[in-house]
Amino acid sequence: MRIVSPARGILPSMPAHLNALATRHGVLPLPAFLPDATFGTVRAADADDVRTAGVRALVMNTFHLMQKPGSSTVQALGGLHAMTGWNGPIMTDSGGFQAYSLIRRNAKQGRITDQGIVFQPEGAGRKFQLTPEKCIQLQLAYGADIVVCLDDCTHVDDSLAEQHASVRRTIRWALRCKQEFARQLAMRRLDDERPLLFAVVQGGGIPELRRECAEALLEIGFDGYGYGGWPLDTQGTLLTEMLALTRELIPLHLPLHALGVGHPEYVATCARMGYRLFDSALPTRDARHGRLYAFTADPRDPGFRLADRWFHYVYVEDDRYIKADTPISPGCDCYTCTRYSLGYLHHLQAIGETLFYRLATIHNLRFMSTLMGLIAAETTVASAS
Amino acid sequence: MRIVSPARGILPSMPAHLNALATRHGVLPLPAFLPDATFGTVRAADADDVRTAGVRALVMNTFHLMQKPGSSTVQALGGLHAMTGWNGPIMTDSGGFQAYSLIRRNAKQGRITDQGIVFQPEGAGRKFQLTPEKCIQLQLAYGADIVVCLDDCTHVDDSLAEQHASVRRTIRWALRCKQEFARQLAMRRLDDERPLLFAVVQGGGIPELRRECAEALLEIGFDGYGYGGWPLDTQGTLLTEMLALTRELIPLHLPLHALGVGHPEYVATCARMGYRLFDSALPTRDARHGRLYAFTADPRDPGFRLADRWFHYVYVEDDRYIKADTPISPGCDCYTCTRYSLGYLHHLQAIGETLFYRLATIHNLRFMSTLMGLIAAETTVASAS
Repeated sequence: MRIVSPARGILPSMPAHLNALATRHGVLPLPAFLPDATFGTVRAADADDVRTAGVRALVMNTFHLMQKPGSSTVQALGGLHAMTGWNGPIMTDSGGFQAYSLIRRNAKQGRITDQGIVFQPEGAGRKFQLTPEKCIQLQLAYGADIVVCLDDCTHVDDSLAEQHASVRRTIRWALRCKQEFARQLAMRRLDDERPLLFAVVQGGGIPELRRECAEALLEIGFDGYGYGGWPLDTQGTLLTEMLALTRELIPLHLPLHALGVGHPEYVATCARMGYRLFDSALPTRDARHGRLYAFTADPRDPGFRLADRWFHYVYVEDDRYIKADTPISPGCDCYTCTRYSLGYLHHLQAIGETLFYRLATIHNLRFMSTLMGLIAAETTVASAS
Repeated sequence: MRIVSPARGILPSMPAHLNALATRHGVLPLPAFLPDATFGTVRAADADDVRTAGVRALVMNTFHLMQKPGSSTVQALGGLHAMTGWNGPIMTDSGGFQAYSLIRRNAKQGRITDQGIVFQPEGAGRKFQLTPEKCIQLQLAYGADIVVCLDDCTHVDDSLAEQHASVRRTIRWALRCKQEFARQLAMRRLDDERPLLFAVVQGGGIPELRRECAEALLEIGFDGYGYGGWPLDTQGTLLTEMLALTRELIPLHLPLHALGVGHPEYVATCARMGYRLFDSALPTRDARHGRLYAFTADPRDPGFRLADRWFHYVYVEDDRYIKADTPISPGCDCYTCTRYSLGYLHHLQAIGETLFYRLATIHNLRFMSTLMGLIAAETTVASAS
């Protein structure tokens, strides 16, 4: 995969205030990778684990949490922060992407109308309805720090008509979200310490629609924006041009989130375009599957650069690691690597021990937070020069 | 179940020096519950978790470790302490009980002769042989702090002939273990800082055989002794009389281990007889199955006594806990209870999240270590009066 080096000039100079995002639960340094804690936990790891791995914010899921444990339970347990033990910023994804994924896979599971989204997941006894208004109400009730507008997601290969409809609906829903957000803030007297509100730019692979969507959302006015839609093509390659265009459409002083981007190479690529927030279940899922992330050299080495082959996978089940008395990644300072050898992790994985999931998850998350630091350092150098 | 209160006098006055056992990896306060870390990990929890739960020593398994990851791997990874990150005392169970269990279940899996034990577990391509000598060699190579002699286990219902044969073999094997232990200490120059050597008293449910076995083992001389054989009858009831007799056969200044006893009520009962060490997979297995241990009142309350209904199960999947914003056990100071509500644990269990296993395991282990403290306090009071 092509890696764009900062010397080649694609990296924009980032305005200083975009190096951090102020939220109700503390300042979030940027760039930031937000692991997916869909159901209120990063799988296999608890709040302390995630914090220790250098993670500063999490993404949870409005749609999944309304089913399990249910919004009244989240509230009974004191909101997402109290319930999960996570005291940093929480972004709650709107559920638009999940609706799209589920309904695309099986049209019987729900439908999307101008009014909103209705799901009836297979096996679930009840229906779940998400309107733009309800989506905002839920996120505020959960205590989210970054609230995301309900959007109408598409695949890049969907028809022009579908992309048109998606953009039209996404803009209308964003407006309804903004209005409901204002109503809720007034009602809840949250004006002084309000969460941030992000909107999502749709438009598939059609530049004119991306532009139309971005401009309309900017006119409504949000605290941040996200790149919406699946960010990879059917071959799994990053939609670099469309991502770059969308970044150009959103002024640099506004934070832009590459929703669903989590592959380390893609994160680095998007960060260089100016994306400042990332979220994905990929690093933690890879961890549970024994695909561990390693830098090819110690990243604390002054000569280390995010160029050429800067990272590789360690497949923990490989027999070569049976007696490996080394950490996963050279010089890694994560909880796992400072305590346990690769050989022990191989053993834990081989016996199907769930402790392996935890230790691997902590490592991959630490890799991602280290990567964020390396990108930040690179950006600072480029901006200063 | 009948609970014997200390006032009723079954509790022996414990000599002061039996309140602790000095090992190469620190002093182990007694009584002690040692969780089973069969394959080199307490399932679902890592070394820090277990330490934080107040656990002071672990039991690992010679027989299982020789298969996975294999003894040469344990040594390549620096021995059990370095490999597992556990820096406290480690007892390594001899494998006698596992041999007995496997072969009893399926005689094709192995056989026991005077020479030793041969296993070929189903699915395993190779045979594993345990002689008394090899058993000692392995445990010393692993770096164990408490080494256990190979014994020939029986069920309490086995025939008199089998119990006879078991006792005869157990005594001979213990002698061979002691001789090999001495040879190995000299060879490894470990005399100044040697591990402890425990022998196991067999004899099923036959008092004369228990006596014969205990007396022969005492004559050989060991640092500690274990009650061998399955400690429950076919109804799952504790073999109280046989356990009490065995305690009477071993002088009180010698530590006695109730092997395989882990049910909180049974631990309390055996502790009152004078047993000082316990190990079992039960508390951690119960945890993973959602059976959480709770005191019926805050055990820090000065009026709290281990009498009547002092403990109960919390079945986490019970719907009554969906919105429970309380800890599992009143006033529990464990990692889990100080951070997470029962409602959140219910949710984690409901979504099949492996983090639940870890948090539940930590809690049940903390319960067991709190119980050890309560028993110690009770013993001290009784001794002083």
